[in-house]
Amino acid sequence: MIDLMLSHRSIRKFRETEIPEHILNKILHAGTRASTTGNMQVYSMVVTTKQEIKEKLWSAHFSQNMVLEAPVHITFCADFNRFSLWCRNRKAEPGYDNYLSFFTAAIDALLVSQNVALAAEAEGLGICYLGTATYNADQIVEILELPELVVPVAAIVMGYAAEQPELTDRLPLEGVVHKEKYKNYVSAEIDRIYAEKESLAQTLELLKDNQKETLAQIFTDNRYSKKDNQFFSAKYLKTITDQGFMNNS
Amino acid sequence: MIDLMLSHRSIRKFRETEIPEHILNKILHAGTRASTTGNMQVYSMVVTTKQEIKEKLWSAHFSQNMVLEAPVHITFCADFNRFSLWCRNRKAEPGYDNYLSFFTAAIDALLVSQNVALAAEAEGLGICYLGTATYNADQIVEILELPELVVPVAAIVMGYAAEQPELTDRLPLEGVVHKEKYKNYVSAEIDRIYAEKESLAQTLELLKDNQKETLAQIFTDNRYSKKDNQFFSAKYLKTITDQGFMNNS
Repeated sequence: MIDLMLSHRSIRKFRETEIPEHILNKILHAGTRASTTGNMQVYSMVVTTKQEIKEKLWSAHFSQNMVLEAPVHITFCADFNRFSLWCRNRKAEPGYDNYLSFFTAAIDALLVSQNVALAAEAEGLGICYLGTATYNADQIVEILELPELVVPVAAIVMGYAAEQPELTDRLPLEGVVHKEKYKNYVSAEIDRIYAEKESLAQTLELLKDNQKETLAQIFTDNRYSKKDNQFFSAKYLKTITDQGFMNNS
Repeated sequence: MIDLMLSHRSIRKFRETEIPEHILNKILHAGTRASTTGNMQVYSMVVTTKQEIKEKLWSAHFSQNMVLEAPVHITFCADFNRFSLWCRNRKAEPGYDNYLSFFTAAIDALLVSQNVALAAEAEGLGICYLGTATYNADQIVEILELPELVVPVAAIVMGYAAEQPELTDRLPLEGVVHKEKYKNYVSAEIDRIYAEKESLAQTLELLKDNQKETLAQIFTDNRYSKKDNQFFSAKYLKTITDQGFMNNS
């Protein structure tokens, strides 16, 4: 199990081979065994395989080719709709149209998604998370016809790998673990934690290609800029609000 | 791997046996191999073992005894502090003080947490998630001395199990999976999806003990009431804001 985790790499190129239904169901079933808050299971998985819908999702996910190539696309949603319907049908008045409920449901969806990702890898499949699920959540709501109290929080593509990429780098364990309490970082520690990442051949190549002095500048200026982050912050908060999760008083 | 997922149960009673450091490090290391957005790894794990700090966490986590009993307590945090420090030290201006960045970092932390949970179980340990990490996040910020741009999103307790509980129920797969698009539920489906849960012996016992007509009422009236959810919604949003993640324009 741990060996499987240690060999995880995101797969972005897929063979055309379909995933047999019994394999897919086994993977989804493994997902459902993740911990959820109070065992409420307030999440949904939308499994998309049809080309026509995948093309729309491809557009929402910044036209990343893997969305079209992968046979299976799963959108993980925070979902208090099903639970609230159940309450109403059982003489109970649901109070889940607020931010805490959204976040609780998001946690459920995300823990399930990681089980699904690992179970897929255990079955010899490759996966890649799409960070863009939160960026264009409003579009995904429309494409997948998500009702109130359902918000996409993550998406993965899944299929048989047509590439075998190298393991990507990770910060050293002491860079992400704090003992007892949080100990803030002094400059020398920051240097040590990021040293390996900064010295990789691919980093040096990136700097050259982008004509940047530091790797951090590629993140702040190109990949995850303040302007984009602010734009998508407002948009995602609007989606959370529009889907009915911001009635906090 | 999948068998391990299928046998997951939350453990709330622990033996006094410590977790050897090399085992704990192996588990945490497996955590770091989870997917993270753009490989930014914007999360932290705070590993608490000292009784004095655990007592404070116990209080923040609604005095659940497992917090005192378990030898190890891990708080998973959305963390853009380390990354932003790195940017500033590398002539790059970080723009991660906004909601999208919080949510991105929360996803990182939650995927890592599920790897850690599964790796712990693979090593013969038991774990339980504490839903209360978001409820009293403000107290946890103080106890663990979390700086700006660090917010707790989940916590688990970990140790050698002193109980072997039954598997808990799950909704049937068709209750949580939607094919192609979201298909909203009609009443008959809600009945079918919740039938097993509603007919469990423990459910009938709960109804009797709480003098309630339906299981849903136990959720809406006792466990997760609208009033509590609204209270903790405002509190968690305030923590996210106070920690500097709400500068969206």
